[in-house]
Amino acid sequence: MKTQNTIAIHGGAGTILRSKLTPEKEKAYRKALHNTIVEGAKILKKGGTAIDAVTEAVHCMEDIELFNAGKGSVFTAKGIHEMDASIMCGKSLNTGAVAGISTISNPIELAKIVMEKSQHMFFVGAGAIAFAKEHGIKEIDPNYFFNQHRFDQWKRVAGSKTAQLDHSDRVDEDKSGTVGAVAIDQYGNLAAATSTGGMTNKQQGRVGDSPIIGAGTYANNNTCAVSCTGHGEYFMRTVLAHRVSCLMELCQLSLEEACQRAIYEDLQSLGGSGGLIAVDTTGKVSFVFNSEGMYRAVKIGEQAIQTGIWRTMT
Amino acid sequence: MKTQNTIAIHGGAGTILRSKLTPEKEKAYRKALHNTIVEGAKILKKGGTAIDAVTEAVHCMEDIELFNAGKGSVFTAKGIHEMDASIMCGKSLNTGAVAGISTISNPIELAKIVMEKSQHMFFVGAGAIAFAKEHGIKEIDPNYFFNQHRFDQWKRVAGSKTAQLDHSDRVDEDKSGTVGAVAIDQYGNLAAATSTGGMTNKQQGRVGDSPIIGAGTYANNNTCAVSCTGHGEYFMRTVLAHRVSCLMELCQLSLEEACQRAIYEDLQSLGGSGGLIAVDTTGKVSFVFNSEGMYRAVKIGEQAIQTGIWRTMT
Repeated sequence: MKTQNTIAIHGGAGTILRSKLTPEKEKAYRKALHNTIVEGAKILKKGGTAIDAVTEAVHCMEDIELFNAGKGSVFTAKGIHEMDASIMCGKSLNTGAVAGISTISNPIELAKIVMEKSQHMFFVGAGAIAFAKEHGIKEIDPNYFFNQHRFDQWKRVAGSKTAQLDHSDRVDEDKSGTVGAVAIDQYGNLAAATSTGGMTNKQQGRVGDSPIIGAGTYANNNTCAVSCTGHGEYFMRTVLAHRVSCLMELCQLSLEEACQRAIYEDLQSLGGSGGLIAVDTTGKVSFVFNSEGMYRAVKIGEQAIQTGIWRTMT
Repeated sequence: MKTQNTIAIHGGAGTILRSKLTPEKEKAYRKALHNTIVEGAKILKKGGTAIDAVTEAVHCMEDIELFNAGKGSVFTAKGIHEMDASIMCGKSLNTGAVAGISTISNPIELAKIVMEKSQHMFFVGAGAIAFAKEHGIKEIDPNYFFNQHRFDQWKRVAGSKTAQLDHSDRVDEDKSGTVGAVAIDQYGNLAAATSTGGMTNKQQGRVGDSPIIGAGTYANNNTCAVSCTGHGEYFMRTVLAHRVSCLMELCQLSLEEACQRAIYEDLQSLGGSGGLIAVDTTGKVSFVFNSEGMYRAVKIGEQAIQTGIWRTMT
């Protein structure tokens, strides 16, 4: 029996105030989310795998300047870009991850190649770039990532010791922090992928939860696939994506119950903020966040695409 | 009421064949393990914290060439050293981690300073070194890490695409892969710390489980403190240290049951090999490994120090 295809994406969680998001901006975000889901769902519909669908969806968002990943990545304290990404296959539990890379247009593609081609699983910095070159991924001129808005955003905090989540109201309310996708394909296989430019003005070499399997990304065909977004340090301390899976497997919680408990108990009790998207083995989807909003979209089987920013989907 | 102090350490798990370990070598390992426990236990006895005790124990092992961490680190494919370390406090769930660092004598001290002084949690490569300098940790001449035995070990596989666990019989049977410590102090607080030089001939930028919170290191005052050693990629895919904690918390397994299940079911079902040390909130200790041996030692309260290499402690 074929499983019902499902794909869900996020474009970051944070203090997304309605009052600050102009109708034009809101429209732009919804359009970007919608188009991304269309591309991911297309792959699932023609019999592609969940891994290929989440890679495509994250790749799409990495190419859109609105999101803090790939082309739209924020500036570090040094005025450059350092990106992280990871991917996990729920069937094999194979994973690939990269961190601290500055000259690759689509970090998620590199993470996928690490998963597929390397005996290792996680590459950082110059070693990740060397691995990319070995596998035919070209370095890109760092100017590709220049964006006046991101630059201005950074300039407001540059020189201070404070790193800022992309959505922080001290920086800019209408920007998100990470992108991610989860999916289940017709073969019943789950996958999750996450990619980020990190925090505005983050110190050189800082790595958050996005490339950490178990923290920002996790997938397991026995339970669920999860991609997180928010204040990365808290997701790492709570090993949040893996936590959701363990709550389902070991406590028989439903996907929604497990996600709620992970965000509203585990994460929130430490003072962390952010959210996650998740899909279970039946194709059910959860979007849970304790921040003001989370850019997100979903397509379940043949149903219409839904996009959301604040509490309710519209 | 005071909790009974306990500290346990490992110096790596792997194919440690009795036939290959000369009596002199065995004696040297047991002495190193014994001396390390003495230093860690001293801190606990005088009222120090579990965090300070595990840091001291790992620091000691980083200074001993027998172990693959700090001074005794193996060579990468590029003929240099790239070290990783992490630490976690079970009370606050605060953590610090560093990866891909080549010029710091004691990576565990740097991980501890990241935990204590940074708003971030995980630094890699040049950013980790910059952070170290900012906090008064000096870079060291890379020659400090030169060791003829390690160099010969590397030369046997250099130029090939294969990375080797330090204990692999294709490299050398009598060497371990990682060092780690777990402890509980008189205040009932747990801590875990792990440090490694990685795999002989590993590719540039490869990061394993040692600096990954949830994979190689985890501590939580509600459950246990865990430090892992073995084929890192498998510990990352199984999020093994966090898995032990979840099995205890969510399934009410004892420490020993949880460790056995994590190693013999979760890890082994993927084909992974290695082991872990763990301590629970009552000061009970588990050493579980599916490899031939694991260098280890423990001191519980006022009891005599025990050291072990193969199945039974002696």
